[in-house]
Amino acid sequence: MAPNTTAITNIGSLVTNDPSLPGTGPLGVIQDAAVVIDGDRIAWVGPTSKAPATDNAVDAEGRAALPGFVDSHSHLVFAGDRTEEFNARMSGRSYSAGGIRTTVAATRAATDAELEANLRRHLDEALRQGTTTLETKSGYGLSVHDEARALRIAAAHTDEVTYLGAHVVAPEFADDPDGYVALVTGEMLDACAPHARWVDVFCERGAFDGDQARTVLEAGIAKGLHARVHANQLGHGPGVRLAVELGAASADHCTHLTDADVDALASGDTVATLLPGAEFSTRAPWPDARRLLDAGVTVALSTDCNPGSSFTSSVPFCVALAVRDMGMTPDEAVWAATAGGAAALRRTDVGRVTPGARADLLLLDAPSHVHLAYRPGVPLVSAVWRRGVREV
Amino acid sequence: MAPNTTAITNIGSLVTNDPSLPGTGPLGVIQDAAVVIDGDRIAWVGPTSKAPATDNAVDAEGRAALPGFVDSHSHLVFAGDRTEEFNARMSGRSYSAGGIRTTVAATRAATDAELEANLRRHLDEALRQGTTTLETKSGYGLSVHDEARALRIAAAHTDEVTYLGAHVVAPEFADDPDGYVALVTGEMLDACAPHARWVDVFCERGAFDGDQARTVLEAGIAKGLHARVHANQLGHGPGVRLAVELGAASADHCTHLTDADVDALASGDTVATLLPGAEFSTRAPWPDARRLLDAGVTVALSTDCNPGSSFTSSVPFCVALAVRDMGMTPDEAVWAATAGGAAALRRTDVGRVTPGARADLLLLDAPSHVHLAYRPGVPLVSAVWRRGVREV
Ligand SMILES: [Zn+2]
Ligand SMILES: [Zn+2]
Repeated sequence: MAPNTTAITNIGSLVTNDPSLPGTGPLGVIQDAAVVIDGDRIAWVGPTSKAPATDNAVDAEGRAALPGFVDSHSHLVFAGDRTEEFNARMSGRSYSAGGIRTTVAATRAATDAELEANLRRHLDEALRQGTTTLETKSGYGLSVHDEARALRIAAAHTDEVTYLGAHVVAPEFADDPDGYVALVTGEMLDACAPHARWVDVFCERGAFDGDQARTVLEAGIAKGLHARVHANQLGHGPGVRLAVELGAASADHCTHLTDADVDALASGDTVATLLPGAEFSTRAPWPDARRLLDAGVTVALSTDCNPGSSFTSSVPFCVALAVRDMGMTPDEAVWAATAGGAAALRRTDVGRVTPGARADLLLLDAPSHVHLAYRPGVPLVSAVWRRGVREV
Repeated sequence: MAPNTTAITNIGSLVTNDPSLPGTGPLGVIQDAAVVIDGDRIAWVGPTSKAPATDNAVDAEGRAALPGFVDSHSHLVFAGDRTEEFNARMSGRSYSAGGIRTTVAATRAATDAELEANLRRHLDEALRQGTTTLETKSGYGLSVHDEARALRIAAAHTDEVTYLGAHVVAPEFADDPDGYVALVTGEMLDACAPHARWVDVFCERGAFDGDQARTVLEAGIAKGLHARVHANQLGHGPGVRLAVELGAASADHCTHLTDADVDALASGDTVATLLPGAEFSTRAPWPDARRLLDAGVTVALSTDCNPGSSFTSSVPFCVALAVRDMGMTPDEAVWAATAGGAAALRRTDVGRVTPGARADLLLLDAPSHVHLAYRPGVPLVSAVWRRGVREV
């Protein structure tokens, strides 16, 4: 092989997510496997006994390996502290919580350096837990200046940046929500589109209705952004069907679905991204992953990491919840947190360990990926490669 | 101060569990705190501004600190792999699971070195997650030789060793359970008592009934052991009331309680140790911590770490579950996982950060202990001292 190749050998059990491998199941699991990394790419995958010679070698000593997690939904450009709001909610005490607006005020007041330091801290924390691709959003600025600034800061750290000016109506427009939609689809979009890949909207009672959401998404699409939608988290509504109709990559949350919603997802190519951290932290009912999978919908699992409703950055924690409470098998949950996340971002270069894919993979202090559900809460990630570089 | 003192300064928020501190609440929380360690003991606790001079200093940079977790219930002397049993259960597939007996067969077949290596691996894993005191049990040997061996191995690594020969009836005694009780209270007890501090019994339909449990516990007490009981996990039964009657330090599980059980716990000094990892991993109903706390019962939280029904070693995970699903406030859950665990082991030297206590404490990558519940699944423990030695 060429110089600067690394072989990871003696992988007890390797999840490739390559369904074309014969007899390996949907996860394409190979026992006693090796992976060769060349630069930032996977060069070779197969049994350790057949691994080609390389410059460097790492002995996995029987550990399990899998693709790095693809966390396709987070809100990490923020400032401020909402610990007391959480504490009061969980302690049954009343608290004059400002909700998202608390974070908006703190985010607007923060310096660029403060926002960037907080983002980096959370990205590093996610990386240590095996997340090698992470989408993040604006949505705590809600002004032209603060939304564009959030996206600029995010874009310096990840390729997957989402414009969510339509998170809630900005406080200045409390009496004029349509005026805020005009801003979001006009001057704010102009300032934000250069920094983002995606446009998103919180389509929910109390945020943006179906017509407003359509206006936001169509404006973003016309500017060259691709759509994703916060849909059907708190109740039934038009979000999921709108996402499918507009060809959105993902409808996120999907907690309250009618049969028509499920049918729409099954007939389109919009991924259903489930975010159990939100249901955990707000004591809400769980999304029914089993119903979606049985209908043939592609399901992704992500953290929704944010300081208000889901302050976990742990994809393994979400996997464990999905298995316990959402009807997913361990295999399905691990697929959803890797290949599923990649599908939700319309990426084919991540979420798999196959020749040509980005060399994003991790080792577990465990013999099988099943341990992510079997050993809930235990930090099992013992090594992480991202773009071929060992980061953990 | 004397040589070999270390000050940890600039602790943003310190949980001392010292209720005598004025105006600090039940957790005795001190803001902007410092802790001085002298040898293996806490020498001084107070505000950073008043900290005495020491030989060494560690700047906590605003992080939260709390006592090391006291995990008073685990089963870590075992061998074998039950991943497929878990996978099948969570995937809705049938599987001819041998349950505890699978682990008994593998444990009997393992060498001493294998058992010890597995135990050490799990103790290290727990320590990295902040557990500085850990109780563990026999119960996968079920023969005189294998029970005594398990306890001898455990005793080399922890002071809190529990004889659980009465875990289930040994397979050799399937047709003679009373014969097995005679062994457990006779020759097996003689061989095991020198290595153990505690005697325990699994008092449950399908394991040992109330009369058998009483026989086991009274025999252990007569040999100088102290009692703790697996009680009321799978259904109602006599375990909790027996534990209180015999003055057991703890009744563990307490998932199914009558009013009489709660009254008994409230009137005695037996701690109710709740083990939500078991309910999580078996999809069982949650124990009602709120009911116990409101009745005045002392509650502890522990992991029950074992390969069959709760393979988590994460006390923070248990704290998050207790807050979400068992009606505990974050403060109550953190107390239960530290001072509560100490009470369940009748220890006053751990579970608190007060002068004279063992120097067992940890720092979190977070400004408050509330983050253990607010940030579920995230490995927040960033430094651990045990007996004054920095281990993590
Ligand atoms: Zn979101
Ligand atoms: Zn147990």
